[in-house]
Amino acid sequence: MLVALLLLYTSEIYSQKKIIVFQTDFGVKDGAVSAMKGVAMGVAADLKIFDLTHEIPAYNIWEASYRLQQTAQYWPTGTVFVSVVDPGVGSERKSVVLKTKSGHYFVGPDNGQFTLVSQSLGIAEIHEIDEAVNRRKNSGASYTFHGRDVYAYTGARLAAGIITLEKVGPRLPAKVVAIDFQKPVVENGTVKGNIPILDIQYGNVWTNIDGETFKKLGLQYGDILQVEIFNADQKIYECNMPYETTFSGVETGKPLCYLNSLLNVSFALNRGNFSEKNKVFSGPDWSVIIKKGTN
Amino acid sequence: MLVALLLLYTSEIYSQKKIIVFQTDFGVKDGAVSAMKGVAMGVAADLKIFDLTHEIPAYNIWEASYRLQQTAQYWPTGTVFVSVVDPGVGSERKSVVLKTKSGHYFVGPDNGQFTLVSQSLGIAEIHEIDEAVNRRKNSGASYTFHGRDVYAYTGARLAAGIITLEKVGPRLPAKVVAIDFQKPVVENGTVKGNIPILDIQYGNVWTNIDGETFKKLGLQYGDILQVEIFNADQKIYECNMPYETTFSGVETGKPLCYLNSLLNVSFALNRGNFSEKNKVFSGPDWSVIIKKGTN
Amino acid sequence: MLVALLLLYTSEIYSQKKIIVFQTDFGVKDGAVSAMKGVAMGVAADLKIFDLTHEIPAYNIWEASYRLQQTAQYWPTGTVFVSVVDPGVGSERKSVVLKTKSGHYFVGPDNGQFTLVSQSLGIAEIHEIDEAVNRRKNSGASYTFHGRDVYAYTGARLAAGIITLEKVGPRLPAKVVAIDFQKPVVENGTVKGNIPILDIQYGNVWTNIDGETFKKLGLQYGDILQVEIFNADQKIYECNMPYETTFSGVETGKPLCYLNSLLNVSFALNRGNFSEKNKVFSGPDWSVIIKKGTN
Repeated sequence: MLVALLLLYTSEIYSQKKIIVFQTDFGVKDGAVSAMKGVAMGVAADLKIFDLTHEIPAYNIWEASYRLQQTAQYWPTGTVFVSVVDPGVGSERKSVVLKTKSGHYFVGPDNGQFTLVSQSLGIAEIHEIDEAVNRRKNSGASYTFHGRDVYAYTGARLAAGIITLEKVGPRLPAKVVAIDFQKPVVENGTVKGNIPILDIQYGNVWTNIDGETFKKLGLQYGDILQVEIFNADQKIYECNMPYETTFSGVETGKPLCYLNSLLNVSFALNRGNFSEKNKVFSGPDWSVIIKKGTN
Repeated sequence: MLVALLLLYTSEIYSQKKIIVFQTDFGVKDGAVSAMKGVAMGVAADLKIFDLTHEIPAYNIWEASYRLQQTAQYWPTGTVFVSVVDPGVGSERKSVVLKTKSGHYFVGPDNGQFTLVSQSLGIAEIHEIDEAVNRRKNSGASYTFHGRDVYAYTGARLAAGIITLEKVGPRLPAKVVAIDFQKPVVENGTVKGNIPILDIQYGNVWTNIDGETFKKLGLQYGDILQVEIFNADQKIYECNMPYETTFSGVETGKPLCYLNSLLNVSFALNRGNFSEKNKVFSGPDWSVIIKKGTN
Repeated sequence: MLVALLLLYTSEIYSQKKIIVFQTDFGVKDGAVSAMKGVAMGVAADLKIFDLTHEIPAYNIWEASYRLQQTAQYWPTGTVFVSVVDPGVGSERKSVVLKTKSGHYFVGPDNGQFTLVSQSLGIAEIHEIDEAVNRRKNSGASYTFHGRDVYAYTGARLAAGIITLEKVGPRLPAKVVAIDFQKPVVENGTVKGNIPILDIQYGNVWTNIDGETFKKLGLQYGDILQVEIFNADQKIYECNMPYETTFSGVETGKPLCYLNSLLNVSFALNRGNFSEKNKVFSGPDWSVIIKKGTN
């Protein structure tokens, strides 16, 4: 019995981390997010429940994809992300669990949300959720809240170790619904990219140009860059600015180019709002051209 | 000793779930919510603390009541809800703990907040909080933050199993302060109800007409309904729309009638904002008449 | 072995509470806060993670200082606060851990954020964070997100008991960078103070006049006060109002003076918004003069 006791105890110590992270476009003014967490705690009260954000703009699948990409790599292996930006709830989109090669799990509708993590973290396996077994009991009369009835429930069971990935449902081919997006291009000492998203709290502008691509320009910190920003064919902004490690490399209010916390090329004003001041925003119509400038 | 150890261990496994859920109208821009959680963690560091919402509009007791109703049923038995929408703090309203027949606990001022859960979940017992024993030590000089000094403290002690319901204070008659609200009426193939609340993030309109009442119209999914919406005596909206299981049953931008996640009759535009487009809002002056329409 | 087992078990019971509380000016619309929490969970999955607020106005170090002060005292001894309002990220400001005499820990840039807690709770020790050892592995290429790479990582290691305060880095003199602020003054039956902050959700006006100072006017609850409020040299507001324990001491819409939840002198309208109605706001230009009035 002593041994059994010890095993019981050590198994607790060495068990899964039981972390589940929620992302939605629900906002937090009503009870929807709380209902999802209640379902998860009903599944297993030792889960550790966190939020990514619930402020994804309504129906914005691209931003949902970006936020998962921005965050997942910083969470421990085994973490289960439940992401519910689901404009097509009740329609034919598939409900899935994606396991990435990094060992993270992503639960939700396969509608483009998993575009970026499937590329950056790699697809290990995808399973379709079998709602005959992986759906909250007695929830069949509700057709509009899969976040609560299917995704929170299934994500919680997976995070708690009640089911394995195999028990989620049938395995699918290793391919997600992907949103098209442009990759950065380097030609003749010029790099072209676009602006998938803003660092909205501060008004910094984040491009899709990764640090590895940017290196091909052969820059040093302190070099001056010539930056042009376009909305469709119209040039909105043009300026020379230095390439700095951090904001305080320039005077207050002055522009700089830097690698953001995801190591993508970005523009900011030191202690100012680049986006607002220069009317530069994000989305598929926004593009950027950068080359080495002169002092 | 071994047995004692085993008991200790198993008692941990089988003990209460120790879940406490906070709701307020404080917002999250200052430290008030965090102070309440700090008090709870000071009571027992193994509590599991969650938020329902802190974005109840200031002093809106009705909405507080609705959000508890929307959420409580999805949380495990034994969960303690601390709800502090308390415009009368320091006045004569009673501070209570309500235990419902479902086994959930509700802590806060008895000012109408518990109107809906007391009806839907049933009243098991109500106790008045005896502040002589159930108040944070040395907090007597503050009269305006019972959320921190009385409700968080008492809710945490109850959730942690430090006190039983009996130790909260004297038992009261099984009756809460209730806000008057209209119930839906079915007459001659017409159902009349009102609009207690919006699904604010998406602009969907939620009525007080429950699915059971709605069934009396003898409808099938796909049937066309004639919907009229009034603000006091003025007709604001009139349209025929289908009764669908989910948003994608109609084209983008078109209206539909559906049962929401609480199984109440609701109106939406597929991927649009019904409330904003049609200037339909919620509150006691808003009413709805629905009957079977023609295709 | 039994003894070892028992020790293991009791050591768990008596170990640190492992509480970490985050405050930032990041907002919660993107993934930055979640990335910090992911790093903390990667350090130790048994940490208990909470938020103070992430809605500090961008770069507002004073408000960050105020919110720590408003909250810390209500959290258990040993709680680790990670506060990242860091306009000078990457510049010469020091990264520190402050331990107060109350036994709380504060992690972040020493840029004025710790002005108020260092005075009210007292400085026990300050250590500079040695980034050679206390920085997330492989994070050296990012210069702009110390919140994630240094502060969350170090705070989590401290809260989890993986490092002691000594292992943070070299001990510094017991002095923080402090923001200048006026203290209240009592002269000839008049108290003068200022308005460091609003109770923003309700529009109540909170002064820097503490209850002890206020007592020197020799007031009783129910006494009438003459209140004048200035913006620089311009008088914005003047009114007589009673000194009450709580809002409901006056009729709906009427002004009152009361001690707020931090026991500082404050002004409110019962169920109304004093700030908005009277155009009274907060900041270094706002001052207040109070004396005993006549009924």
